[in-house]
Amino acid sequence: MRLHGYFRSSAAWRVRIALNLKGIGVEHVPHHLRRGEQRAPDYVALNPQGLVPTLQFADGTALTQSLAILEWLDETHPEPPLLPGDPLRRARVRAFALAVACDTHPVQNLKVLARLRGLGLEEAAVVEWAAWVNREGLGACEAMAAAEPGPFCFGAAPGLADLCLVPQLGNARRFGVDVARYPRLLAAEAAALALPAFADAVPARQPDAEP
Amino acid sequence: MRLHGYFRSSAAWRVRIALNLKGIGVEHVPHHLRRGEQRAPDYVALNPQGLVPTLQFADGTALTQSLAILEWLDETHPEPPLLPGDPLRRARVRAFALAVACDTHPVQNLKVLARLRGLGLEEAAVVEWAAWVNREGLGACEAMAAAEPGPFCFGAAPGLADLCLVPQLGNARRFGVDVARYPRLLAAEAAALALPAFADAVPARQPDAEP
Repeated sequence: MRLHGYFRSSAAWRVRIALNLKGIGVEHVPHHLRRGEQRAPDYVALNPQGLVPTLQFADGTALTQSLAILEWLDETHPEPPLLPGDPLRRARVRAFALAVACDTHPVQNLKVLARLRGLGLEEAAVVEWAAWVNREGLGACEAMAAAEPGPFCFGAAPGLADLCLVPQLGNARRFGVDVARYPRLLAAEAAALALPAFADAVPARQPDAEP
Repeated sequence: MRLHGYFRSSAAWRVRIALNLKGIGVEHVPHHLRRGEQRAPDYVALNPQGLVPTLQFADGTALTQSLAILEWLDETHPEPPLLPGDPLRRARVRAFALAVACDTHPVQNLKVLARLRGLGLEEAAVVEWAAWVNREGLGACEAMAAAEPGPFCFGAAPGLADLCLVPQLGNARRFGVDVARYPRLLAAEAAALALPAFADAVPARQPDAEP
């Protein structure tokens, strides 16, 4: 399988962690988002949104949207599971993941920030937009995980919530968010990054990483 | 069960359709988003994001995030299914749903548009922002469904993709998007709205509807 991604894309980063956790090797195909490579016609034929990641099989079949890819991975490669077995617990973990993947990340991605710049916003206002989105999302996630057992977001094993959390905290720091406000999330992040599956997935360790 | 919602919220609308399809009756508890009722402390205790929908059980347990609620409904009330059985098909349907629920709806919701107004954008520019987001999302969805059998987005029965599509087309029209560009999506919408489960879920038929 090939994973079309970009070292800094937090959506691709989620999938890298899951592949590592499940011990699935893939060929990494980087697309430089800041240079617009994701809008090349060949790539848009695979991923009509022109976004990363895309997981592509040897027969050409392409799966898009990180959470759809993660659910597919969990259904077809169930060990270790990314979701608990109980439907109510699954719903809680998914809600946390979606709070990041729907209401946080897409509102501060490269495309949206570029649009804001195009509207004439100064760079400081663009960064404050992204920081605001992260504070809103991470503040809610802190509350959603507050009563859950640790060390991970939802208990003793890492899962879908942690996969979404760790890259989002990376974004939040890039935009200057004071992440010390989220001690429960930072504890889960520390537990996650102690695992090779998470440590090996960080942007700086990807083949297309830039300083 | 209680469904905390708002007649015009497309996320709550998705859940209303699913409840209708599955024949599950709920008590509807409206929260007037334009008046900020979703930020009341009692409600934020249920839903830390201060968003609708929230599905609440008799014992007080609350589920948030529309897609997490829809997956829970499908796991606990499997008939009729919202997702196909085959993992690859499930991934395709989820990718379509997420293209709406992650990359489209949250980038043009009430909160984001209010933030744009707060930055000094004129109303025409705010509406054009929302229209742009809808064009980007629906254009990709049109491509994702293009090769799929009809009449619904992914075949002979309505499912998760249709649940997300119909409310999003409602948004697109409110923002003046020329939806005639998306004939495959309009055909799926027409098939869906011919069903009482979809027709009864439209904003105008909700108890809190306003003209």
